Amino acid sequence: MLVTTWKTRIRYAETDQMGYCYYGNYPVFFEMGRVEALRSIGIRYRDLEEQGVMLPVAHLEISYKKPVRYDEEITIETTIPEYPSGTRLPFDYKIFNESGELTTTGRAVLVFALTESGRPCAAPAGVLEALKPHFM
Amino acid sequence: MLVTTWKTRIRYAETDQMGYCYYGNYPVFFEMGRVEALRSIGIRYRDLEEQGVMLPVAHLEISYKKPVRYDEEITIETTIPEYPSGTRLPFDYKIFNESGELTTTGRAVLVFALTESGRPCAAPAGVLEALKPHFM
Amino acid sequence: MLVTTWKTRIRYAETDQMGYCYYGNYPVFFEMGRVEALRSIGIRYRDLEEQGVMLPVAHLEISYKKPVRYDEEITIETTIPEYPSGTRLPFDYKIFNESGELTTTGRAVLVFALTESGRPCAAPAGVLEALKPHFM
Amino acid sequence: MLVTTWKTRIRYAETDQMGYCYYGNYPVFFEMGRVEALRSIGIRYRDLEEQGVMLPVAHLEISYKKPVRYDEEITIETTIPEYPSGTRLPFDYKIFNESGELTTTGRAVLVFALTESGRPCAAPAGVLEALKPHFM
Repeated sequence: MLVTTWKTRIRYAETDQMGYCYYGNYPVFFEMGRVEALRSIGIRYRDLEEQGVMLPVAHLEISYKKPVRYDEEITIETTIPEYPSGTRLPFDYKIFNESGELTTTGRAVLVFALTESGRPCAAPAGVLEALKPHFM
Repeated sequence: MLVTTWKTRIRYAETDQMGYCYYGNYPVFFEMGRVEALRSIGIRYRDLEEQGVMLPVAHLEISYKKPVRYDEEITIETTIPEYPSGTRLPFDYKIFNESGELTTTGRAVLVFALTESGRPCAAPAGVLEALKPHFM
Repeated sequence: MLVTTWKTRIRYAETDQMGYCYYGNYPVFFEMGRVEALRSIGIRYRDLEEQGVMLPVAHLEISYKKPVRYDEEITIETTIPEYPSGTRLPFDYKIFNESGELTTTGRAVLVFALTESGRPCAAPAGVLEALKPHFM
Repeated sequence: MLVTTWKTRIRYAETDQMGYCYYGNYPVFFEMGRVEALRSIGIRYRDLEEQGVMLPVAHLEISYKKPVRYDEEITIETTIPEYPSGTRLPFDYKIFNESGELTTTGRAVLVFALTESGRPCAAPAGVLEALKPHFM
């Protein structure tokens, strides 16, 4: 299991007229979480793309438990719960507010795919190697 | 059951460097779908807010089956599958591309809440009345 | 001179906690305006890109005179003020609210550039031909 | 003169299909720059709003010199060039890429306004006091 955290501050652009962070921004927070999770084990997503592999999202789920507000610094906890066996890579998310309260949970399932054809493919060897130490 | 459709065209702003519509834009499409679904039965979301009731999203689920691309006109099909019995109002979504292919499915569960306190509340009488003819 | 109009409705996603349409959304409205201006004379921006020419923005200017709010339908008036003589294509914008009041003015100067190198280039012949009748 | 810097990394959500950071994201970067500039002298924008003063943008100007790309860490240099004398507060911006090259310049002019009426007002005493040491 790989667990990493990343912090970001809610931008004014991300609020809505309810005074909350708009619900459609959470996929962006999740994206930041997984990019930094991969970076923590030495994988830059942009390198993957340059090698001809992309990682589109196949499935997304979000539970909104508490709103977060403008200027709050949130902590995005990203977990890779299992070693990827096929073409899929799931990420689990928890978002905490400044008081440490759990505000949001979610899951995004990504698919390894060839940039040229868009077809699903196996996880690149480099990704598997980087992940292995965390699943033993 | 209430089923409505709404069309929108993918903006350049909504693409990403994969050349796809970024996965984080779909919650915005869903929002457009439900606002127009409510408008079709005479309810303006902004009037609800002025009456002190808001509708934050409690749960969101999206399955991405096919990418959509820049400048494609998508059709957002929004369904209210059941008459609201408590504080929740679910919406089901299907998004079709210009060729009529199903690209995305999803569900958003909204909660009626008092603007002042943020507390869940029953659906306003006006909403129930407007929905009733579609569930008989 | 080519003048076209396009309508769009302010999305909840586009509001901020002041209750206004966030100032950073106007470049997106301008983009919609110019894409539809070009479409009105038979040019699809996506075809340009497929032919190896892109149109990045070099300069942007916006004056915010009046806020627009959630669910308002705005009218984006887009003007190509002059026939392009070099590598640049300017667009002037006026945004009106539902009452016909001028809320925003702006200008975006775009540059024809080769997709491969990113280098500025002359306007494609097809674009010039489509524009010509409007500048005589 | 007050000069501060802030760093942020280009998100995938912020790219477009040209592979660049979409031009409409720069107003958001500018917003981050000025919020952190104010924070550096002890002013939280959210406190201003709670005190009944907001700061909408009246004018914006951006020159795009070089594109920035996905995953690049940009440095936003924010300058308050002059001590505010009336109701306006201008901010100048320079954005640098990871190699230290100037990619973007801009200016945003904000207006102090009363939240209740939306009317322009003088800069709050607290803001003037916090700025004063930087303009002597």
